Amino acid sequence: MINKNTKFLIVGLGLIGGSYASSLSQSGYQVGAIDVNQSSIDFALKNNLIAHGSTKVQPEYLAQFDVIIFALYPNQFIQWITDYQKYLKKDALITDVTGVKQSVVYKVQSLIDQNKEFISAHPMAGKAVSGVQNASSQIFKGANYIITPTNKNTQNAIETSKELASILGFEKVSVISPKEHDEIIGFLSQLTHCIAVSLMNCEHKIELADFTGDSFRDLTRIANINDVMWSELFLLNKETLVEQIDKFSATLEQFKNYIKNEDVSGMRQMMQKSTMERKRFDKK
Amino acid sequence: MINKNTKFLIVGLGLIGGSYASSLSQSGYQVGAIDVNQSSIDFALKNNLIAHGSTKVQPEYLAQFDVIIFALYPNQFIQWITDYQKYLKKDALITDVTGVKQSVVYKVQSLIDQNKEFISAHPMAGKAVSGVQNASSQIFKGANYIITPTNKNTQNAIETSKELASILGFEKVSVISPKEHDEIIGFLSQLTHCIAVSLMNCEHKIELADFTGDSFRDLTRIANINDVMWSELFLLNKETLVEQIDKFSATLEQFKNYIKNEDVSGMRQMMQKSTMERKRFDKK
Repeated sequence: MINKNTKFLIVGLGLIGGSYASSLSQSGYQVGAIDVNQSSIDFALKNNLIAHGSTKVQPEYLAQFDVIIFALYPNQFIQWITDYQKYLKKDALITDVTGVKQSVVYKVQSLIDQNKEFISAHPMAGKAVSGVQNASSQIFKGANYIITPTNKNTQNAIETSKELASILGFEKVSVISPKEHDEIIGFLSQLTHCIAVSLMNCEHKIELADFTGDSFRDLTRIANINDVMWSELFLLNKETLVEQIDKFSATLEQFKNYIKNEDVSGMRQMMQKSTMERKRFDKK
Repeated sequence: MINKNTKFLIVGLGLIGGSYASSLSQSGYQVGAIDVNQSSIDFALKNNLIAHGSTKVQPEYLAQFDVIIFALYPNQFIQWITDYQKYLKKDALITDVTGVKQSVVYKVQSLIDQNKEFISAHPMAGKAVSGVQNASSQIFKGANYIITPTNKNTQNAIETSKELASILGFEKVSVISPKEHDEIIGFLSQLTHCIAVSLMNCEHKIELADFTGDSFRDLTRIANINDVMWSELFLLNKETLVEQIDKFSATLEQFKNYIKNEDVSGMRQMMQKSTMERKRFDKK
């Protein structure tokens, strides 16, 4: 469990790592950090996001931390664990912020020493901008925190994850399996990004920007996308995502056929369902 | 041209008709209205949206107006013109707010008497709620107004339409053909509504609402939809809309195949294009 002496290490000081650091430091915990960029460490030190940090992996530095939070791209995270997990404290609790689970959780759990525990989590928060310079503890307010334990995890680790979520200010904490997580994220997040990207890749002879309304702007806001990170996330959830795209395409095809066949009752039925269903998704 | 004595008639006092009435009355013009519901007329009178109004079509009432604005569903509009256009003032200028053009403009122009002129327009403004009770002249601020003249229209009517748009407070006025209009709207508005409706019709075993982030909310906000009005609009733009759906589906399929084949460079190219293109659609 977390207490006032618990020391946190953030590996990867980007937008999310920096926001974790900021929030934990504000709550009075000692926070250290590892990042490849000295400028990110400097910024975080100067702005009191961290107490200390390093661009190098030093065994004696790593050995002091109780809870390690990985805020790296998935493949970097797995590589880091492979290379350096041995330097972490014997009974360290390791967690992460990775947006895909099945392809990461089992792999990392198989790589770490038996006395350490890795419990995976996904903070559903973000911003359209990246980098530690944009970090803010405010992005977690009202947001969802998903914990995805496996049968290798202890109840104690699950409780500690919940505590962490609460310290960070998340509104709702859910505990689901890695498979459920990937299905949900494949649909709610990855599919919607694929749709937005595809919309912006449709060719038109007419200059459309002059005619845009808020609906189109809302639907394509996320077409402004970090192509390095998302191509990695898409591939690590490939099968589930392809399934979600196929399911959506079939539904759109059905709606199109109603239009084509002038089946007004079919169209209206789908619109009535969407209207009813959508209400459940409004912000509480 | 519009002058301080120009009398306006609004046919159809819903959200858009009511907002036109409100804005024109605030600008000092005399505004009358026809609506099938006495309660809508009463509300508009009580709130000074109109000077007078009627639920009945009375020839002597209709004959006094210089500019007639139709804010009805498309098929109702065509029916009204068929039945009653003969009662309108001899040199009346008729305009509308209809969201589809090719299937409406030529038809209405063929139905009206030679001494009258119909110039079609599409105010790209709205709200998630409907009804005259939600009318507001504010919805036109910063919005686009599209005029779609044909070779039957006079330069004078185009100029009067521009004047009307300016009085109403629209930010930008465009003049394009009915065909261009339907392509643009088919893509920017109708396709996006079809996508949102289809997203909300995808079946899932897991309760998703708990895990929703802002991206999914933004993409599906318009899934809360008036099924009567939109099924009519979709059918009246059937061929263009089906074409836009097919084009989008093919683009999404291409992106899916990049994922399936782990073609990172193909994926990143589409994401880089979407990021670049999307910037042009930001609000100025």
